[in-house]
Amino acid sequence: MRPAHRTHAALPRGAAAPATAGEGAAAGTGPAGVDPFAARVARAVDPARLQARQRGLAAHGGVATGGVARQALTEEELAARRWLAQDFAVRPGYRIGIDAAANVHLRREGADPSLAPVLTGSHVDTQPLGGWLDGAFGVVAGLEVFAALDAAGARTRRPIDVVMWTNEEGSRFAPGLMGSASYAEPARLAQFLPVADAAGVRFETARDAAVADLNEAARREGWAWMDTPLAAPVHAYIEAHIEQGPVLEALGLQVGCVTAIQGVRWFRVVIAGRSAHAGTTPLAARDDAQAKAVHMAHALLSHAETCGDERLRLTIGRWQCSPGSINTVADQVAFTVDARHPEAAALDTVQALMERCLPAGGRIELLQDKPTVHFDAGLVALARQACAGLGLSHHDMLSGAFHDAMPMAAFCPTAMLFAPSIGGVSHHPAEDTQIDDLAACTRALAWCLAELAGPA
Amino acid sequence: MRPAHRTHAALPRGAAAPATAGEGAAAGTGPAGVDPFAARVARAVDPARLQARQRGLAAHGGVATGGVARQALTEEELAARRWLAQDFAVRPGYRIGIDAAANVHLRREGADPSLAPVLTGSHVDTQPLGGWLDGAFGVVAGLEVFAALDAAGARTRRPIDVVMWTNEEGSRFAPGLMGSASYAEPARLAQFLPVADAAGVRFETARDAAVADLNEAARREGWAWMDTPLAAPVHAYIEAHIEQGPVLEALGLQVGCVTAIQGVRWFRVVIAGRSAHAGTTPLAARDDAQAKAVHMAHALLSHAETCGDERLRLTIGRWQCSPGSINTVADQVAFTVDARHPEAAALDTVQALMERCLPAGGRIELLQDKPTVHFDAGLVALARQACAGLGLSHHDMLSGAFHDAMPMAAFCPTAMLFAPSIGGVSHHPAEDTQIDDLAACTRALAWCLAELAGPA
Repeated sequence: MRPAHRTHAALPRGAAAPATAGEGAAAGTGPAGVDPFAARVARAVDPARLQARQRGLAAHGGVATGGVARQALTEEELAARRWLAQDFAVRPGYRIGIDAAANVHLRREGADPSLAPVLTGSHVDTQPLGGWLDGAFGVVAGLEVFAALDAAGARTRRPIDVVMWTNEEGSRFAPGLMGSASYAEPARLAQFLPVADAAGVRFETARDAAVADLNEAARREGWAWMDTPLAAPVHAYIEAHIEQGPVLEALGLQVGCVTAIQGVRWFRVVIAGRSAHAGTTPLAARDDAQAKAVHMAHALLSHAETCGDERLRLTIGRWQCSPGSINTVADQVAFTVDARHPEAAALDTVQALMERCLPAGGRIELLQDKPTVHFDAGLVALARQACAGLGLSHHDMLSGAFHDAMPMAAFCPTAMLFAPSIGGVSHHPAEDTQIDDLAACTRALAWCLAELAGPA
Repeated sequence: MRPAHRTHAALPRGAAAPATAGEGAAAGTGPAGVDPFAARVARAVDPARLQARQRGLAAHGGVATGGVARQALTEEELAARRWLAQDFAVRPGYRIGIDAAANVHLRREGADPSLAPVLTGSHVDTQPLGGWLDGAFGVVAGLEVFAALDAAGARTRRPIDVVMWTNEEGSRFAPGLMGSASYAEPARLAQFLPVADAAGVRFETARDAAVADLNEAARREGWAWMDTPLAAPVHAYIEAHIEQGPVLEALGLQVGCVTAIQGVRWFRVVIAGRSAHAGTTPLAARDDAQAKAVHMAHALLSHAETCGDERLRLTIGRWQCSPGSINTVADQVAFTVDARHPEAAALDTVQALMERCLPAGGRIELLQDKPTVHFDAGLVALARQACAGLGLSHHDMLSGAFHDAMPMAAFCPTAMLFAPSIGGVSHHPAEDTQIDDLAACTRALAWCLAELAGPA
């Protein structure tokens, strides 16, 4: 069943914030927009504690030569989840649970048990060899807010949940975002359960093992348990994440207030030709799949490079040709196009160009078409207010990548906060962010969560 | 030791025929250029007998679903060689031998044992899955000339050898042309012996087994034996082969008189970029190896397509990109360029263009550079004369592919005769030629061999 506020996601960009998201901000804001409760919690964020937990997490699946290998629901990820939970799950006022998509929910109880929780979090799974911050930072930041609330002796009206979403990356089980998509739309879980990894292990089997593992840990450690159904009502979801791009660093800013996740279309272009001997076949007698593909790809890339719209992102990431022999004219080439832009019309233009320059013997497959997801205007305004209140340099921006906030945005008021990525590098052992920037983003998150959960 | 006439290959194109190659033609030619001896032998060529032997050969390694799998020195190829030899090796006046490169020589003795033989032949090894004519036709055509000589009761002054060269294709042991290259330049054999196939079998081991196999067959069947050292003097070499291209068919001609094997340069272009997220990285902040490679390849292909020189052949046969993920900017692309033209200057132009449009982070490796090999002008003139004398439509042409005639051209006066390929298809089960065209080419070959060997 879809909660009533699901329709908020359909509001036009910049529309008035829904009351559910805005009420916390409105209720606690004092003169000049400064909320003393939120400011107190934010000030209690401790960069050293944050860094220690972030480093400790990186040891789970850490690779000696650099980077982290902690794919979804592996032993390494399950150990990381238990390690992250154990500091809080033993404390009074905290409960833990795991839902049918193996998302782990760690709850800091609120004063009013009838109110829906405020959610934060992200994922702790990585690419086969990823960095130490992608996803991980959003979970560690949420736990640092718990630590800050505890240190400040703050009690909130609503519960706050830090969620570790399952299989965001999609590198072990395809597609990604399985946990957050299942939470937001439980009917999708049935499609994910039979998906097998490269070793033939089904997602369902791995999910069952993860659920059993956390149950066993909770029993052994005496953690307070809670049932966590999918699609249980959520007051708001706000996720901290590294940018994974170079924009904030280039602008010299500390925090990105994310207004939307830009739309993306994935295409596969398959071009057939006729195999022929490279030496004996005059060019005029050829049907060269490679030459046709190169000319089409050149037209697409040239459009992206010269159209003057810096928001358009066009990537040809895969290129396969057959038979792949030096002295044989190619009989088939397949390449992929990843096209992204916040406006559908710009993607329509790319698609029309692809159709126009598709050579004879070619076809275009649309692999996926995800429209731009706009975040909740009230929550984005709250994020700006938090940065302003804390004196952090900030900037409205788009997310170029998918995040768990994407499916969640269709379910409840949602927004994201970005921390800069050094050199824009991500999905790579060199992925990094200054600890001051991680702390700044965590302070903004603490402010927002404190506002949304409200003082008790 | 190199025979004295080796220097003929260095004569400029169109130079006067060397006396050794021309003497036969001059000696036997009657009024209107018709040599009664050569014409009599050529007329004795029997299309049905030719076709039967060609079909019988295709059964060795024949694949039920079409095509022939008979790679170099496999059981299938050794059986094919024995099967081809057996019809003649038992007859009086024939001898057989195998040299240190496992090339099988089947000799029809001449009247004067002091004279060097005239050679013909080709190879019976195929690509992993090839057609029934590539190489095979040249051997079968030579044997059909033996049959025609026998049927005509013709005795020649010089011996005629049909040679089955070893490993022309290079698909089991790389590179190709091992047998003919070793014959023409025995010092090269030492480089070939350690080469191993995909199963780890050394060429030397396969060579030893082939030599033992033919010795055993000769002993068992009572074939007359001869020693066949590498680089033994050869009067002339003329090889029949299918064109493997569409030119003769397009012109509606029966025979190609091959004047040269066009030059070829193989390049590998490696272009480095920087891996980045397709969604989060603006185009201006990218170093996209794929985009750089596409632009360079576009420039090269556009040059070939628009330069107006239909002799230029440019092929990009391989294209590999890393990491090959839809939503990741490529950090490396490698592609190959196969460039062919009879004139070195045209290949220099391609190479200069490659250097000019090589992007930052790119490098060009020259994998091989084989200059154009010009055939012996006197032998090409003889081939034309044979076609004219037999009333066959013919045309001077280049060979776009390598053949055993390429290394042989540096050793003795050499030329080739081409039969048309239907649709230009080769290295494929669909490879085919009309039997009338195969017979026409074999008649021209018979004429040339009879002329060169001369009536006794």
